[in-house]
Amino acid sequence: MTMAKRERIYLFDTTLRDGQQTPGVDFSVEDKIAVAKLLDEFGFDYVEGGYPGANPTDTAFFSKKRTGKAAFVAFGMTKRAGVSASNDPGLAALLQSASDAICFVAKSWDYHVRVALGCTNEENLESITASVEASVAAGKETMVDCEHFFDGYKANPDYALACAKAAHDAGSRWVVLCDTNGGTQPAEIREIVSAVIAAGIPGAHLGIHAHDDTGQAVANSLAAVEAGVRQIQGTLNGIGERCGNANLMTILPTLALKPAYAERFTTGIPDEKLADLSRLSHGFDELLNRAPEQQAPYVGASAFATKAGIHASAVLKEPETYEHVPPESVGNTRRVMVSDQGGKSNFIAELKRRGVAVDKADPRLDTLIALVKEREAEGYAYEGADASFELLARRTLGRVPEFFRVDGFRCMVERRFDANGELKTVSEAVVRVTVDGETLMSVAEGHGPVNALDIALRKDLGKYQAEISDLALADYKVRILNGGTEAITRVLIESFDGTGARWWTVGVSDNIIDASFQALMDSIVYKLVKNRDKADAAEENAA
Amino acid sequence: MTMAKRERIYLFDTTLRDGQQTPGVDFSVEDKIAVAKLLDEFGFDYVEGGYPGANPTDTAFFSKKRTGKAAFVAFGMTKRAGVSASNDPGLAALLQSASDAICFVAKSWDYHVRVALGCTNEENLESITASVEASVAAGKETMVDCEHFFDGYKANPDYALACAKAAHDAGSRWVVLCDTNGGTQPAEIREIVSAVIAAGIPGAHLGIHAHDDTGQAVANSLAAVEAGVRQIQGTLNGIGERCGNANLMTILPTLALKPAYAERFTTGIPDEKLADLSRLSHGFDELLNRAPEQQAPYVGASAFATKAGIHASAVLKEPETYEHVPPESVGNTRRVMVSDQGGKSNFIAELKRRGVAVDKADPRLDTLIALVKEREAEGYAYEGADASFELLARRTLGRVPEFFRVDGFRCMVERRFDANGELKTVSEAVVRVTVDGETLMSVAEGHGPVNALDIALRKDLGKYQAEISDLALADYKVRILNGGTEAITRVLIESFDGTGARWWTVGVSDNIIDASFQALMDSIVYKLVKNRDKADAAEENAA
Repeated sequence: MTMAKRERIYLFDTTLRDGQQTPGVDFSVEDKIAVAKLLDEFGFDYVEGGYPGANPTDTAFFSKKRTGKAAFVAFGMTKRAGVSASNDPGLAALLQSASDAICFVAKSWDYHVRVALGCTNEENLESITASVEASVAAGKETMVDCEHFFDGYKANPDYALACAKAAHDAGSRWVVLCDTNGGTQPAEIREIVSAVIAAGIPGAHLGIHAHDDTGQAVANSLAAVEAGVRQIQGTLNGIGERCGNANLMTILPTLALKPAYAERFTTGIPDEKLADLSRLSHGFDELLNRAPEQQAPYVGASAFATKAGIHASAVLKEPETYEHVPPESVGNTRRVMVSDQGGKSNFIAELKRRGVAVDKADPRLDTLIALVKEREAEGYAYEGADASFELLARRTLGRVPEFFRVDGFRCMVERRFDANGELKTVSEAVVRVTVDGETLMSVAEGHGPVNALDIALRKDLGKYQAEISDLALADYKVRILNGGTEAITRVLIESFDGTGARWWTVGVSDNIIDASFQALMDSIVYKLVKNRDKADAAEENAA
Repeated sequence: MTMAKRERIYLFDTTLRDGQQTPGVDFSVEDKIAVAKLLDEFGFDYVEGGYPGANPTDTAFFSKKRTGKAAFVAFGMTKRAGVSASNDPGLAALLQSASDAICFVAKSWDYHVRVALGCTNEENLESITASVEASVAAGKETMVDCEHFFDGYKANPDYALACAKAAHDAGSRWVVLCDTNGGTQPAEIREIVSAVIAAGIPGAHLGIHAHDDTGQAVANSLAAVEAGVRQIQGTLNGIGERCGNANLMTILPTLALKPAYAERFTTGIPDEKLADLSRLSHGFDELLNRAPEQQAPYVGASAFATKAGIHASAVLKEPETYEHVPPESVGNTRRVMVSDQGGKSNFIAELKRRGVAVDKADPRLDTLIALVKEREAEGYAYEGADASFELLARRTLGRVPEFFRVDGFRCMVERRFDANGELKTVSEAVVRVTVDGETLMSVAEGHGPVNALDIALRKDLGKYQAEISDLALADYKVRILNGGTEAITRVLIESFDGTGARWWTVGVSDNIIDASFQALMDSIVYKLVKNRDKADAAEENAA
């Protein structure tokens, strides 16, 4: 690679501004501070934080600079027509915010100028010029998002170009061409970007802002880069209004790992940072408290997973010829999945990865495979419950002691009027356990029956109690397998402990409490098994 | 449009074959029959059903022809090297299956021929030729999926071309170029497809099979069409191995509605069928029992949704300038969402859509907006619970009678040894209701506490009982809002009745039973309210 000649592509993250338009997403100031930190540390060039002056959250967020290395960008409208730049309160709020840069949004479709702004085309151009000049004079790096640029260009190319030129000529560092409605096709993007460059705005000053309404936000962004733009706007995990914005978690590794781009371009994010990509993506989902998309390019749990019978054994032999990039380059891992379609070699490989050695000829392996198939048919999902799979395997291969036995439990939820005449719901659970021949009973109240059961179950496990004191539940998911409240329920529980280990367990039943109980039990037993693995390893090291 | 000159694009659905590789997806024969029916009725040209001979499900599925108009396609490998076509049992199973067409998969990357097949390049070419000839001789429409074609072409263009030519020359109707690992970029697709056409295989005999590993399966498919191919392989909702296959739910409307394609091409699916697209997509998700992707292009619930303050009122005034295609063209609907960011005009529009008129100056409207914000902050999600939103609005605007009152309930779940010494879990609920001053008590057992509560609650509602007899629960979703079993739980319940109406209600509590109770109550009350709306409308019509 001729590294010296590579051109710089600037990455602009708008998770906190355009990403905020995602249905179901609302960031608090604390959320915004946390996300800005993630983005800044990862190495994005620009972090757009919101619209100071538009709402209390964004105003508070812009009361301080929130990034270190990344430029901290405030978004806002150009000044209104008919007032001077110095008399526009919206513009004043932008200029006074603690941002390094301002990204103005400007109409560039004459139709919208008339209908939405209600001013003349000339007044709109004047607003762009005056706003950019005021921002530059205030010492802010300045850019202009030309809203509806591609649709506007198709309707009136001269006017769309005039808006872009007004921004550029007034000193805007970047002119960003926005496919606001998201319907533009890659070939149109290439053609229109080329026309803008031909009209006198160098690609080094152009950006692209794409939406995923035809599933092509990534392709449109890359088509624009090929045509000459050097800034890409997008979001973490592609969140955004309607179908989302361009997904930077997909664009970045494509630029960095695909020779067609990597040989020509470089971003501000070093290659070694790329190995943190999956963590960044999942960390953001965690912050939003939503499940990561399993099938997301590069970073999804399934992105390097195989369950195909015809491929699986070949993948294990020669992974690089079945993977478009090495999973570890983006911090992901190869998975050959346990499933109905999995053959013997998949099982052996998966068990080996977990430190469980088994011979191909061992008849217990056939029993295990049959058992997994049977349980998956009942609704268990071992793909998503690694710890329950490992326990089932170890049990079938004869390697899990019965630490304790639960003889029974009872959960009670009651909604009634309390002494003050207010409706109140109380939950209580009683658990009866036998440890080493001794019967122990525990009772607990909780927030709901599962919580009460969890507390009661972990309240007194006799001699094992100390070992599980650092176990805690991180997540609890419920999936109804066939509709209605009388359906089969699958519960997945994520646990973690003081060592930072995390594991998932599964339970299935037509009763949600029963399914939860199975998953809770597996979680505790898994922790006890792992503790013994560690003790064995320590002993070996000592020997 | 010059309709007469439009070229035909053939759509090949591989949901039941390549889509089966999706993590978590396993089709039964009944599932396959249902999906094939959906696809056939919708008008896809080819329905690939699986690999007869490879597993009992696919063999059973191919025991009969399962489509009417669509060609029913069996997938399988070309004959093994070293045996004649007539002596290969795999090929025999394909030829004997009740398929109209056979799609062979053939290696076209010399590296894989050596490593995975363990035969010579020449033997592989001979296998392709002999297999295609045998299939054509058996009267099957024949096609060949050239596996790893693009990676193979990059490594050894001559050999990849030789494989494609062997298929074409032997009489294959289609030669399908597969980006098996999914890492090829659109520009490479264009270049390599052009090279294949230049080498003598007409585009009218070429197909594309793309995967979404760089988020560009749709763009790659369309780039191949632009370069000349006339068959596209993809799946319903883009399901498939790793990151999925090309999503036909995105490609079809793009071909049909985007002028750049619609002016040049036509598919076998009539425009009026396109208005069933959202229903097809959601129907398939329902069959898989998974939640539809909210942000999916064209068909997602959010694809035409706006919550942006700066856009929302403009969208309502001039929707066509904010939407890249009309939502109704794909059977979707415009939504201006009730949310934290929604302004007054959004609320009024949303209420109007539900037949609730309210004046902008009505102070109760401000109360409602404040209430929605407060409840959304607590965890309620009215975006996904239209019926609960409507009830809250009607209650705040003073229009919902108190039909009945629940004075209290008690749920009990017990796991114990039964008379035969087997562990058993039983659930029971008691509900106390007041209707017209009369107290009614009901008790029920159920599969789990929510089911028991649901049955008990709907067991005796006095004079309202007959009205709710056709109410049933379709789906039940649980979301934990902040981790752990003691977290806030949000329950969403989908109900339906004998008229085919479906509605969603929501409940939020730190107790899952309590949250479920709220959603169940809303569902019943909503049904009673709607019944009264209908009665009023009938009366008006009669008057």
